[in-house]
Amino acid sequence: MQEILHAIQHLIKPSNEELRAFTDIVLARSYKKKELILQEGQICKNVYFIRKGLIRYYQVKEGTEVTGQFFSENNWYTDLESFLTHRPSRLSIEALENSELLLLPKQQMEELYVKHPVFERLGRILAEQAFLGLKNRHSAYILRSPQERYTSFVKNCPHLVQRVPQHYIASYLGIQPQSLSRIRKRISLVQDLLT
Amino acid sequence: MQEILHAIQHLIKPSNEELRAFTDIVLARSYKKKELILQEGQICKNVYFIRKGLIRYYQVKEGTEVTGQFFSENNWYTDLESFLTHRPSRLSIEALENSELLLLPKQQMEELYVKHPVFERLGRILAEQAFLGLKNRHSAYILRSPQERYTSFVKNCPHLVQRVPQHYIASYLGIQPQSLSRIRKRISLVQDLLT
Repeated sequence: MQEILHAIQHLIKPSNEELRAFTDIVLARSYKKKELILQEGQICKNVYFIRKGLIRYYQVKEGTEVTGQFFSENNWYTDLESFLTHRPSRLSIEALENSELLLLPKQQMEELYVKHPVFERLGRILAEQAFLGLKNRHSAYILRSPQERYTSFVKNCPHLVQRVPQHYIASYLGIQPQSLSRIRKRISLVQDLLT
Repeated sequence: MQEILHAIQHLIKPSNEELRAFTDIVLARSYKKKELILQEGQICKNVYFIRKGLIRYYQVKEGTEVTGQFFSENNWYTDLESFLTHRPSRLSIEALENSELLLLPKQQMEELYVKHPVFERLGRILAEQAFLGLKNRHSAYILRSPQERYTSFVKNCPHLVQRVPQHYIASYLGIQPQSLSRIRKRISLVQDLLT
């Protein structure tokens, strides 16, 4: 539990009693590499905190998986759309490594919001952070070239470059795998020239 | 004030005292058509509620304005990125019609959150809604063709189709203006055949 408690105390200042009420609703679950955490069509009823491992979400477009985003240690994730609207999810969540997740069930979270409003603040901050992450990603799509998107990914998520299979990175960046190989080759040539 | 009070009572259930504390922090401002509400480089220090009129935000990419989104009566908007991080905004907000806006200043909102936690809930719900709006928009970019993006815009925002100049709609949808004209012509031919 230590990781999630540190993560929330970084965002809000709950009392010991409030912290206990929070830990009471948290469930732990392990997922094997390649196991689905949520499947398209299911309703997403949890917020997930990644204690260990790596997950991705993806949507299927004309038979092809389009990777949405990656989340690793100490990240929070939920399919907020399905979670908030109670509609079947349009995406799937998959473990890319053996992963240990903590689950915050929706109904218990809503009771917690009412009993301990300090967690409304946590909910607000997490929603704001989710918005900022998506905004950066959307702006990169609209305003940046594929090469800029890749260099920015390497700069901001160096820990993911080695852990995530390359075709998922290409799909995440909206780049054809062969174009990503060309971009990587070009960058490595420039690096060689500079060293 | 009636519109904004209805809008918040639709989302949360504040007491009369809490409602008074809320109205105390709201400022009213009018903007002429084409006037900038926020200019790129300024820090966004308000949440805006559109009482009357129409606004858009845009970013500049290689000298060209790329329209981000439109907001009309009873919509909320802020550059959440600049608002939350205190960093200079990467976008500009412009009135597309003479507009009447209500402003919620950041500092007073934060004091309100502390004094009346019911407004934490409002902040959470608004951040969640902002996320959902952006998610829909981002998914449309990743998963839909230009023609699908346009027909979905017409279906979801029929009130904007007449009010927003066409080149802004094209820019918002990530379509060249001449392609949008072709798409509109094609749709109108199909409609003629069906009627």
